[in-house]
Parts: sequence; structure tokens; C-alpha cells
Amino acid sequence: MKVTIIGLGLIGGSMAIALKELGIATYIYGVDHNPVHVSEAIELGLVDECVDLDHAIAATDLIIIATPINAAETILPLILNQINKQIVFDVGSTKKVICEKVATHPNRGRFVATHPMWGTENSGPSAAVKGAFLQKATVICNKHESDKNAIELVEHIYGKLNMHLLYMDAADHDMHVAYISHISHITSFALANTVLEKEKEEDAIFELASGGFESTVRLAKSNPAMWVPIFMQNRENVLDVLNEHISQLRKFKTCLEKENYQYLQELIENANGIRRVLKN
Amino acid sequence: MKVTIIGLGLIGGSMAIALKELGIATYIYGVDHNPVHVSEAIELGLVDECVDLDHAIAATDLIIIATPINAAETILPLILNQINKQIVFDVGSTKKVICEKVATHPNRGRFVATHPMWGTENSGPSAAVKGAFLQKATVICNKHESDKNAIELVEHIYGKLNMHLLYMDAADHDMHVAYISHISHITSFALANTVLEKEKEEDAIFELASGGFESTVRLAKSNPAMWVPIFMQNRENVLDVLNEHISQLRKFKTCLEKENYQYLQELIENANGIRRVLKN
Repeated sequence: MKVTIIGLGLIGGSMAIALKELGIATYIYGVDHNPVHVSEAIELGLVDECVDLDHAIAATDLIIIATPINAAETILPLILNQINKQIVFDVGSTKKVICEKVATHPNRGRFVATHPMWGTENSGPSAAVKGAFLQKATVICNKHESDKNAIELVEHIYGKLNMHLLYMDAADHDMHVAYISHISHITSFALANTVLEKEKEEDAIFELASGGFESTVRLAKSNPAMWVPIFMQNRENVLDVLNEHISQLRKFKTCLEKENYQYLQELIENANGIRRVLKN
Repeated sequence: MKVTIIGLGLIGGSMAIALKELGIATYIYGVDHNPVHVSEAIELGLVDECVDLDHAIAATDLIIIATPINAAETILPLILNQINKQIVFDVGSTKKVICEKVATHPNRGRFVATHPMWGTENSGPSAAVKGAFLQKATVICNKHESDKNAIELVEHIYGKLNMHLLYMDAADHDMHVAYISHISHITSFALANTVLEKEKEEDAIFELASGGFESTVRLAKSNPAMWVPIFMQNRENVLDVLNEHISQLRKFKTCLEKENYQYLQELIENANGIRRVLKN
């Protein structure tokens, strides 16, 4: 199958590697507005050829949108305007806005809204890796709005990628990811800023930073071009979770201020309950 | 050399494995007030024998204190009362209180205050692992208060463990670890409580939780018996960093409330600066 991948970054690039390896894509057209990404993607062998969007759409059976989500919501209606039988899916981190954007489009059925729950803090074509996605979850949203054969193809591809599928309403999806992904990033960005603001002896951070610190601030390396649009689109859910998080941090602050170590112990014991819901 | 290890948990147990493997310890006496830990440590082969503290002190050349820090500060003066030539070091996460506690003790010179910067979120003898400590940092505090031969032995041991040594004043150490270790734990505990409080659909967390979430909340599994005393002893530094962290989170909140995405972009770009000071 000939495949177009729009957006040759971490996800688009890793998807390209996987689709080639699994024999799903026989030829991959890459589309990216950034000429540096275009040359890197060609050089790394992620795609066979980089062309403009119209050419790619006309030449392929499957179109994957892997741009930042603000670009995806602009591009998707343009693509749907041009296609007949082709199938389009996106891989963005929010789903409500993009689904609303094309809800009444005559070709809505050709589009499948997906979110593979995998990523790293790195970005660009050089961040793409082999074996991404493996055994992670993919959410498919508003399944009933997509054509049966479009859903079947997308399910087949994610199945081949060895991912397990979940189905959700787009609004529910956005609320859940605010908790389990977006707030972790805000926390990590804020923690990095805290340390950079207060710990002027950067050598001390470098020398002392242990595994715990690195795992907590790792996400703070993430690309703003990806994350600002996510926070924009999921603003209400993220604000809701952020308010709760600040109020939880204040409980720790009050315990320390009042030297209420019994309650501090209880807060930590409660947090230990996260073991119940984590796999590892 | 015969060695006593007091506290047979993650650090004490991992230290026992390493000292045996490197041929530094020929025989290890374990001391732990928890009978379950005692049997586990024997069963796992971490120590050769478990005895009471007095017996262990009399029979060994080197005594390592690997208990939670509140127990360490109680035990250390009792040990110093009983020793002649033996050398004692601790591995606790705060250093100011324990150094103050024995500052004027006639045997102060036999004690070396150390903090190997390694750990995991797990605890107890079964959490002990081979190859811990490797290529991490160890801080030695108030070196001038220890006897020359005591420092030399401890430097030799950490060198054999393949750790790099840093020297600091105890108060400076406690301030730095508030930034690069203690705040990460509070953030992680608070994040776990946020999610557990607000995300009532625990199945959704379980299914969706991706690498980012798991790395940020991993530390929330940490043992309160270890962490409450750390927060007590390092209360002022931790409060200072926690106040800054809450104020950094409020900046993200304000950006979202006011839809000031330019400033949000700047906050994230600033956070990306953490790449400068992280090794990986």
C-alpha cells in the first residue's frame, strides 16, 4: 500500500519505520513544511520521497496526519475535500476539536481519529525510533462516525503494531489524557523552571542529579511546538486538573508549615495507592 | 574486613551485595529491628548473620548505618560511645542534623557522613539489587571533622563501587538535595493524589498510562517511613523549593486562564533549558 505521512517528526517518523518494517507500506510519501525535516527524513531513509500535499494525496491509499494538532485540524478538512476512497487517520494528543471540525464534512467517514499513547521527550525526524508503539494503547475516538472499511484498516494497522485498542468518545478521551499525560508535562515543565530559577549552581544539579530527578524532569525537554497547541485545545480539562494538583501540593506545604507529620504520612500513604493503577 | 550493616532495606541490602562482590566484606553482620526484614535478608543471602547491635559493633571493623534518617541520628551517638578504632559511615539523604548531633562527640573522627545518590521507589531487603550505585555520585559532608584514615577507607569503598565523590558542607548538601531530589518526590506524591482524587475511572488510568505518566509518578510509590523523616529534617529547604514550585505552576495556570499562549511558549522554552544540566 502507498502511504502518505504528513509531519515527519517523532511520531510520523517512527510510524514510517514501523509501516515499512511490517510490510504495510510499500512506498511512503513524506510531507513536511520544514525543509530541514524533509532532508533529514530522506537521509535517514524514513520515507521514499518528499512531495507536496496535493501530489501525495492523489498518489496514495492511506494518509496519516502526524503534525502538531493545530496544523492537523487545518489540514484535515483540506484533505477530506480532495479524497474519494482514500483513508485518513491522525495521531494527535487531543481528539475533540479535530472531530468537531469535520463532523459534518461529506467525507467524514473516510477519517479515523486515533491517539497512539506513546512518545518521548524528543522531537524531529532524528527522534524516530524502531519498535515504538509496541504493547502500548491506541485510542480510537467516535468510531461510529467513520466508515466500516476505514476503521477496519486502521484496526488492522494498530494490531500489526502490537498495540491494544480502546474506544472512547472524543470528549472523554480529552478528559482522561489531561490526567494521565498533560498534567505530567505541566508538572515537569514547572519543576524544571523551579530548579533553574532557584538552584543557581547548575554544576551542583549536573553532579548530583539522580535517577529520581531525571525521571521527573525528563518530560520538561518536550517541544513547545507540540505542547502549546495541546494545552490550548484541552485548556478546560487541563485547568481543572492543574487546580487540583496545586491544591494537593498545598496540602504538603501546610503539613510542613504546621509540622503535621501524621497527616504528611497519610498523604504519602494515599499516593502509594498509585501502585494499584500502574502496570510496572 | 568484617562489616556491620544496620538497616537491611534497599540501600543497606544493595550495599551488602556490592561489598561482598567486590571482596571488601568478608563477613557481614546484619542488624534490623524488623524481624521480617531479618529473615528476608538471611534468606536472600544479603548478610551472613543477624545479631544485636552491641554484638555487631564489637565484632566488626566497619559499621554502615542504612536506616531511615531519624533512626540513624539516634543510633550514631550510641555507636560512637562504644567504638575505639572502628569506622562508621551513614548513607542518609540529609546530612546537617546527623553531623550536628555528634559534632562534639569525642569519637566524632571515626564517623564519615555520606550520601550515595542512588535509589529506587522500592523498599525492604527484596528491593536490594546488584550493580546499584554504579557511576552515580556520592557526597561526603564535613570531611574535615572525620579522621584521615576513616575518610580514606570510605573513599576507597566508594571508589571500588565506581561512584564519583563530591565534598560539601552538610548544610549546602541539604539545600541542593531539596532541589534535585526532595521536591521531585513531593511533586510525584501530589501528582498521584491528584489523579487518584479526580480520575475515578481507575481502569482508564491503567489502560492509558503511558511512559510519561509512569516516569513522573514512579516516585509516588516511595516509602513514607523513609520520606517523612527526610521532609522533617529538611523542612526549611523543602518549603522554600515547594513555594517556588507552586508559584511556577501558578504561572502555567494564569497562562491558561488568560489564554496567554505566547507566555506559555516562553515558560516551556525556559523549562527546555533543563537539557543543559542533565546528563542524558
